[in-house]
Amino acid sequence: MIIIGIDPGYAIVGIGVVEYVGNKFRTLEYNAITTPAGMPTVERLKKIYTEMTMYIDKYKPDAVAIEELFFNSNQKTAINVAQARGVLLVAVANKNVPISEYTPLQVKQSVTGYGRADKKQIQSMVKMILGLNVIPKPDDAADALALAICHAHSNKMNNMLGMNGVR
Amino acid sequence: MIIIGIDPGYAIVGIGVVEYVGNKFRTLEYNAITTPAGMPTVERLKKIYTEMTMYIDKYKPDAVAIEELFFNSNQKTAINVAQARGVLLVAVANKNVPISEYTPLQVKQSVTGYGRADKKQIQSMVKMILGLNVIPKPDDAADALALAICHAHSNKMNNMLGMNGVR
Repeated sequence: MIIIGIDPGYAIVGIGVVEYVGNKFRTLEYNAITTPAGMPTVERLKKIYTEMTMYIDKYKPDAVAIEELFFNSNQKTAINVAQARGVLLVAVANKNVPISEYTPLQVKQSVTGYGRADKKQIQSMVKMILGLNVIPKPDDAADALALAICHAHSNKMNNMLGMNGVR
Repeated sequence: MIIIGIDPGYAIVGIGVVEYVGNKFRTLEYNAITTPAGMPTVERLKKIYTEMTMYIDKYKPDAVAIEELFFNSNQKTAINVAQARGVLLVAVANKNVPISEYTPLQVKQSVTGYGRADKKQIQSMVKMILGLNVIPKPDDAADALALAICHAHSNKMNNMLGMNGVR
């Protein structure tokens, strides 16, 4: 199955595309959608929508995994990120691809096996699991790959338990 | 010109459509996009996107006016409303219709002439300005009509001053 992981954001959206077949991962692409600070909000959201749609059209994923949103202290940032996340969700939904949400804790546990791993440890595990030569950059792309891995593991576990993998 | 006012929300989005020609308003429609509480988030956002797109296709507005978002204390609600607002913005932007944002204070001042009007006074003024027989229901639709009126006034003022009406 092909899985796209999304690390939601407003200035930068992490994208990680993996294929997961018979316990093996293949990394198809990792990248980021970026929007410049000087661009009007509406144009930035439109750019996010258009590029997200292009990723869906290009890879025709079986599933999309996106990080759940928690609020930070900056309200302006929080509104912008939440608006962008809504745009990402609807871009995927308009292509009828199922979406699963994971908390940062779920991602950590799935990728490193325990919940107290730091960012660097997660990135090293992503590199190892995917057999990459370097740690993926930017960080947002590495986080997106971690989400895709988390979904593959979670989906496999749910299949073993006879459950539906999509929340 | 045809203006659609949007009162952004997650469970209920107010929609108000007016035509403004030569200082006269004509109300074309007021209504609400609603999403049921039991429906998954992604489906609710998709419903909002689809129905917003239908309003744009139906009325081919020259402008859309939407309320600026401020956070309330409930974080879960705030994320949901911001995500929905992002979806509304991108649905309009995907149809290349210009969008203006107004604060609640701007709407109050524009519709009632002063900034301390309460909700009931605003609704009464909307009814009077548009020559309606009753106060529009639901409240979200009345708020959306107020936004459309605010944009018409603001646009007229900016035209008189030789400024661009679209922020």
